[in-house]
Amino acid sequence: MNVEFINPFLSSLVNVLSTMANTTIVPGQPRIKKDEVARGDVSGLIGMVSPQTKGSFSITFEESLAVEIMFRMLGERPKGITADVTDMVGEITNMVTGGAKRILGEKGYDFTMATPVVVSGKNHTISHKSEGAKILMPFDSDFGKVHIEVSFDK
Amino acid sequence: MNVEFINPFLSSLVNVLSTMANTTIVPGQPRIKKDEVARGDVSGLIGMVSPQTKGSFSITFEESLAVEIMFRMLGERPKGITADVTDMVGEITNMVTGGAKRILGEKGYDFTMATPVVVSGKNHTISHKSEGAKILMPFDSDFGKVHIEVSFDK
Repeated sequence: MNVEFINPFLSSLVNVLSTMANTTIVPGQPRIKKDEVARGDVSGLIGMVSPQTKGSFSITFEESLAVEIMFRMLGERPKGITADVTDMVGEITNMVTGGAKRILGEKGYDFTMATPVVVSGKNHTISHKSEGAKILMPFDSDFGKVHIEVSFDK
Repeated sequence: MNVEFINPFLSSLVNVLSTMANTTIVPGQPRIKKDEVARGDVSGLIGMVSPQTKGSFSITFEESLAVEIMFRMLGERPKGITADVTDMVGEITNMVTGGAKRILGEKGYDFTMATPVVVSGKNHTISHKSEGAKILMPFDSDFGKVHIEVSFDK
């Protein structure tokens, strides 16, 4: 997988959570994901297609952080992973990939995104089935962790 | 959502499980999905993009049926939802959408698929976040149930 693809998602997520939810997150060290366990309770997934490659992006929030972001964006504190929270995670998935798409477009990669799907459940697993490595990027915040995963065929 | 999009996925799934795993499934009545609960233990998800619309497809197997299909395709009976089973579910996701893509192409819809993502976990939820209705199609077999869901913006 092209390592140029990693930073656009990282910087887009930092930017989206800062501007939309006034939430600061601190990136940890990206690494290759070898297992299938999702690092949290609710995940947004989206497929991405370009003439050069295709792949998938996912973002997984711990429940505590998802609830806090919901509170900061909408002023209401949901009781757990409600349908409103999965809607919000779907929107964040769209915004992060939209930001990454703009940056990747400047590098000559013209991606089209499918629509997001949001998955939740304690101890759910996620396996990206593209041909490339699965890159896992951890982020920490005062309210819990968020992880993103990207995997592309080339 | 265009109802023309439903039957290609239905017939492609029946065909894939019959030819690849010698497994007969009986379609039930398609309906609109209002809740988020996945109907099984392991799900393959894939994004689809065309010039006219975009959306997502998912297929959810009960563990008993996923294990039986694995046995019939590869001659080994896995102990639960192993990495081999998620690989197989990813492959079936590709094959079913590939078959549907061919049928939809004949109707003038030229879809490109992203790469699949496979999710597992007891009581996991799936929410397709496209603008259209979420169509749920149930299928029964001697070894358990499989459900597919499709949702497109138009």
